[in-house]
Amino acid sequence: MAESSLAVDIETVRDGDRCTTSDAVAVEEPLEIRLAHTTSAGRAQRSVSITMRTPGNDRELAAGFLFSEAIIRRARDIAAIEHCSPATAGSGFGNVIRVDLAADVSVDLTRLQRHFYTTSSCGVCGKASLEALHSVGASAPASDGFYVRREVLIAVPQALRAAQSTFETTGGLHAAAAFNAAGDLIVTMEDVGRHNAVDKVVGYLLLNNSLPAETMGLIVSGRASFELQQKALMAGMPLLAAVSAPSSLAVELAREFGITLIGFLRGNTFNVYAGAERVIG
Amino acid sequence: MAESSLAVDIETVRDGDRCTTSDAVAVEEPLEIRLAHTTSAGRAQRSVSITMRTPGNDRELAAGFLFSEAIIRRARDIAAIEHCSPATAGSGFGNVIRVDLAADVSVDLTRLQRHFYTTSSCGVCGKASLEALHSVGASAPASDGFYVRREVLIAVPQALRAAQSTFETTGGLHAAAAFNAAGDLIVTMEDVGRHNAVDKVVGYLLLNNSLPAETMGLIVSGRASFELQQKALMAGMPLLAAVSAPSSLAVELAREFGITLIGFLRGNTFNVYAGAERVIG
Repeated sequence: MAESSLAVDIETVRDGDRCTTSDAVAVEEPLEIRLAHTTSAGRAQRSVSITMRTPGNDRELAAGFLFSEAIIRRARDIAAIEHCSPATAGSGFGNVIRVDLAADVSVDLTRLQRHFYTTSSCGVCGKASLEALHSVGASAPASDGFYVRREVLIAVPQALRAAQSTFETTGGLHAAAAFNAAGDLIVTMEDVGRHNAVDKVVGYLLLNNSLPAETMGLIVSGRASFELQQKALMAGMPLLAAVSAPSSLAVELAREFGITLIGFLRGNTFNVYAGAERVIG
Repeated sequence: MAESSLAVDIETVRDGDRCTTSDAVAVEEPLEIRLAHTTSAGRAQRSVSITMRTPGNDRELAAGFLFSEAIIRRARDIAAIEHCSPATAGSGFGNVIRVDLAADVSVDLTRLQRHFYTTSSCGVCGKASLEALHSVGASAPASDGFYVRREVLIAVPQALRAAQSTFETTGGLHAAAAFNAAGDLIVTMEDVGRHNAVDKVVGYLLLNNSLPAETMGLIVSGRASFELQQKALMAGMPLLAAVSAPSSLAVELAREFGITLIGFLRGNTFNVYAGAERVIG
């Protein structure tokens, strides 16, 4: 298991007092994701992503990334996921991982360049970003599969914080979790990158054959951006709750696809930006 | 001037009371950066980046991005920066911008794929990421060009917050600013993306012929990652201060290049992760 935090010597400055001590920081290391797949000329392998991440749950990260980007559609599209190099002190933290796709899976790698931000019909704009999601078959979650009580929802951030082991040590990690209507956390993941934390959650659910996650909400420790809302949509999750603010395009996406979007979920209060009918009580 | 916040109807839930009201959210829209440059076959144009950003200061964002990625080296490498489409309600927010490079500038676009995370000699790891920075000529800022007093440093976050006009409205934007040894903010920028906020600051300094910024520090409203520390390095800034935690690789980069790295700058306290000699008093 790779280390997710690292001790460093620092100087603390408190009201004019300076002293040298040791502090834990969140580990940030690059992860390269390689994809091995069948082409007309046989098997091919190529690098599809390099992301700065916190080591740990790399398999889930790779699977969730490929699923969120619509490169793969189901768990059985993956034949194997393996680190290409061992996690030793000298060579980093097992920083290259290879995803072997099943022989019958064909991939559209041009998708990775486009990132869902653009369509050929109408160029680059928020509206095009939403249209691109329709074009890969993203669809609204069922309107009657998930309801959550107000009292349950306001307790979720506390549960998330309690499950964040590395954040407690370093103060430096984003977290994401899937939770059910009773407020139980199904899976919690941490990472220096907020997208990575969500990809790890989605990848975990994918590898455990739990997608589409029609009866789960997603909570994130920071803000709700277009990309995080997109990942919730691809995973079939009917609700996204953020401890901080949503962006305009996250709101538009949620309304376009009938997803419930909660922001500023803190203490006893929150704002509902879309899909208020799923919040009861 | 593009709008950086947008009014949306929401439902607020406060201790069981639900009411419908209007709220402002930070605008998030894609920006495509195109590069027009000279090749052996004449002038060519290609798309080099699509990023989700908050509209406004797009010229600075494009210039700062290209400079941070070492595609351009100085202000006169840029002949012109222009939006390709007007900012109208129907077509988004002027979401395509073209940077015309001067005729004598040659570009290495392969750099954009590698992102400073990898070198051919030692693969993908934190150490390789630091080596890649050396390979593009990044060098340590002068050790005696910038000192900041403790009392000055602890006042900077408050000045940053006061300058964040859109954050006050939406609660949803990251901020970055360059400040001098007296604690005056030289330039403050906001964006839904933290990298974009820093690129806008660096781009502003570049376009105003203020790089390398050897007598300025950079403050960011969130965490200090490798990429933000890299941008400070490329801009020649000797100090990076973050309101929240640094990552392991940000600490390594700061120590490797002799940059002062401050974290958890809040109230009267902060931690110094590298380069404590630049903090006096």
